Amino acid sequence: MALFVHKYGGTSMGSTERIRSVAQRVAKWARAGHRMVVVPSAMSGETNRLLALAKELAPASPTPQSLREQDAIASTGEQVSVGLLALALQAQGVPAVSYAGWQVPIVTDDAFTKARIQRIDDARVRADLDAGKVVIITGFQGIDEAGDLTTLGRGGSDTSAVAVAAALRADECLIFTDVDGVYTTDPRIVPEARRLATVSFEEMLEMASLGSKVLQIRAVEFAGKYKVPLRVLSSFTSWDIDLQEEAQSGTLITFEEDEKMEKAVVSGIAFNRDEAKITVMGVPDRPGIAFQILGPVAEANIDVDVIIQNVSHDGRTDFSFTVNRGDYARTIDLLMNKVIPATGAAQVIGDAKICKVSIVGIGMRSHVGVASKMFRTLSEEGINIQMISTSEIKTSVVIDEKYMELAVRALHKAFDLDAASIAAE
Amino acid sequence: MALFVHKYGGTSMGSTERIRSVAQRVAKWARAGHRMVVVPSAMSGETNRLLALAKELAPASPTPQSLREQDAIASTGEQVSVGLLALALQAQGVPAVSYAGWQVPIVTDDAFTKARIQRIDDARVRADLDAGKVVIITGFQGIDEAGDLTTLGRGGSDTSAVAVAAALRADECLIFTDVDGVYTTDPRIVPEARRLATVSFEEMLEMASLGSKVLQIRAVEFAGKYKVPLRVLSSFTSWDIDLQEEAQSGTLITFEEDEKMEKAVVSGIAFNRDEAKITVMGVPDRPGIAFQILGPVAEANIDVDVIIQNVSHDGRTDFSFTVNRGDYARTIDLLMNKVIPATGAAQVIGDAKICKVSIVGIGMRSHVGVASKMFRTLSEEGINIQMISTSEIKTSVVIDEKYMELAVRALHKAFDLDAASIAAE
Repeated sequence: MALFVHKYGGTSMGSTERIRSVAQRVAKWARAGHRMVVVPSAMSGETNRLLALAKELAPASPTPQSLREQDAIASTGEQVSVGLLALALQAQGVPAVSYAGWQVPIVTDDAFTKARIQRIDDARVRADLDAGKVVIITGFQGIDEAGDLTTLGRGGSDTSAVAVAAALRADECLIFTDVDGVYTTDPRIVPEARRLATVSFEEMLEMASLGSKVLQIRAVEFAGKYKVPLRVLSSFTSWDIDLQEEAQSGTLITFEEDEKMEKAVVSGIAFNRDEAKITVMGVPDRPGIAFQILGPVAEANIDVDVIIQNVSHDGRTDFSFTVNRGDYARTIDLLMNKVIPATGAAQVIGDAKICKVSIVGIGMRSHVGVASKMFRTLSEEGINIQMISTSEIKTSVVIDEKYMELAVRALHKAFDLDAASIAAE
Repeated sequence: MALFVHKYGGTSMGSTERIRSVAQRVAKWARAGHRMVVVPSAMSGETNRLLALAKELAPASPTPQSLREQDAIASTGEQVSVGLLALALQAQGVPAVSYAGWQVPIVTDDAFTKARIQRIDDARVRADLDAGKVVIITGFQGIDEAGDLTTLGRGGSDTSAVAVAAALRADECLIFTDVDGVYTTDPRIVPEARRLATVSFEEMLEMASLGSKVLQIRAVEFAGKYKVPLRVLSSFTSWDIDLQEEAQSGTLITFEEDEKMEKAVVSGIAFNRDEAKITVMGVPDRPGIAFQILGPVAEANIDVDVIIQNVSHDGRTDFSFTVNRGDYARTIDLLMNKVIPATGAAQVIGDAKICKVSIVGIGMRSHVGVASKMFRTLSEEGINIQMISTSEIKTSVVIDEKYMELAVRALHKAFDLDAASIAAE
């Protein structure tokens, strides 16, 4: 008997009718003899409703005390959905029991609204599984050592599911979502985009952080740390799809490199147009200069993505980085008023109308010329590259945002992703 | 420094605006130097919404497992409202912390949907009070020894408030509600009805069970058992009413009989038109006959209120009782098919168009002639009495429902309740 953890998102739990359908799907797996744990999100819209109520009444500036209350309020959304799913399973004659995170318990640190899971006691859950019950556990939340409720932050239910799967040494953690897997790129931009049957953990991390919002990146990191086989698949197939077929659908995120994966040089094209580019020009090239520029930015809680510093000329260099587009004006302001006077840099220039396009692939490690093929492809389309950043398994370029679709389509074709599905290899 | 427990109903917590107003009222008491514990209900409509969701998905017949889930779902309404109230207090600069019943913990038995409180650990709450915090605790719920969430059933928040007040030995438990106290009778029927400044515990029990739905009867019983001074008062006065005035408003339910109370022979007139009368005629007058008739009724989960058996003639007697009007047809059916054949009774007759009117007063104990004055008053109005039932502090009559208002008004006047407020004595 295999042990599976299923995770269902808020849309899948969006109405009593949909919850009934989730129950039928879970019942199918349970009746096939599998040991089942389910981690559902709150009904769609519910967490937002609760947070809006809290925001109306909360102090203007959050305090640890107010965030504690906010977490206690927000965590109720999942408490309702686990209870409803348990009832729906019971109504179908499947023994089921629900637990809030604090009942398991799922112990976290006390960082309210962004807590991290520290440990999970699996005794109670195992006893129920041994007794033949489906166990349903709230996502998104836990309890700290002081006995206060905590939440893991947005999308935390994915992380909860993976953490539960790790604690129970589940055979696989299945993330049911509104997409049917991980694609070579966004099918809305490239209709020829193909679903990947498997993707490596490292590629998935790059894809997630680059904007393929299929899975929470923390969940992927967690899965990697504990080697939890993770499958992303659709919850929009009919619940009575054949179980064997369903178990092979979607995209499996793997942690071992095998020959098959070596075949594909590039697995996908990721992109992100939520960024803005900033360059501090004429920076004196001396030790500590990067910290002098980025220290104040980090202190202002501004996340920095790509960072580039090129070789210097005449003791001066240009220092470039990208930030979230929403932080653009604030960052420029900060640099003008604090950094330029302190560093003696010449000037700050920026551009909010850029995008980042990346090719991602574990195969790049052992294949030379991948980056240059990318540059040639863009050049053939007349697209100017503003910044380049590379890692072992990805190459990113910053280009004018108006060329984004064109660049993604051209790269998708150039790296043979349009062709037969990778899944078929 | 006195310790007060405030309880606010769902209407008082019905919107963020109203919650803010509750917070201002509580803040006023806290700033006056009082130690404050607050037990709010769920926002109005919320418990019904949650139970409706549960009902849609639950098995057709409830099981202990499904009731466990229902309780976990229903208990979230209060978890949201305590968090919101804590936030609203914090926003006003008043340190506040909320706890779900399981965090206190409030330990109950495991009778899901109708659990009884067994004990309350006051250590955590006391530590917070000592630290100058307002402590907000969910009503309606607790945790059983197995670590499962339980609810106390409808109106359970009153009981929670009284239980918390008892555990903390509070100076007074104030139940803020949508009426401004306990009246001599329903002012909608008798405009001259007066608010009682005090009412004895026993009278309150009779008033509550007879239809003055100001307080849950279980809460009153709990208050009586632990001698918790209980005040019912309005949450619809402006929150900035003078604290001294507010502290004396409403109706105080007392547990010691003092001279003042002896003065008023009758404290109030209660009534109930939700009942139906049933008479089993020609019952053989032998030991065990009451059980033979009422046993099957109780087994069918039909609540019986007034029970009357008169002396017998020729070895046969008539046995009458009242049931909830909604159970009338079912009860008649049961008696016809099961009881008549088994007992050899002659026939069953009934009347659903009746009402019960009662005079309630601790003073009746030492005043003869109170009941006869009641009968004379009704007789003068031409109202025929169908059944009579008496206890130490009340006398109830069953009459045709069309005379209800007339009877209540006449009795209210006859017992001098129209005159100066009892409060002024």
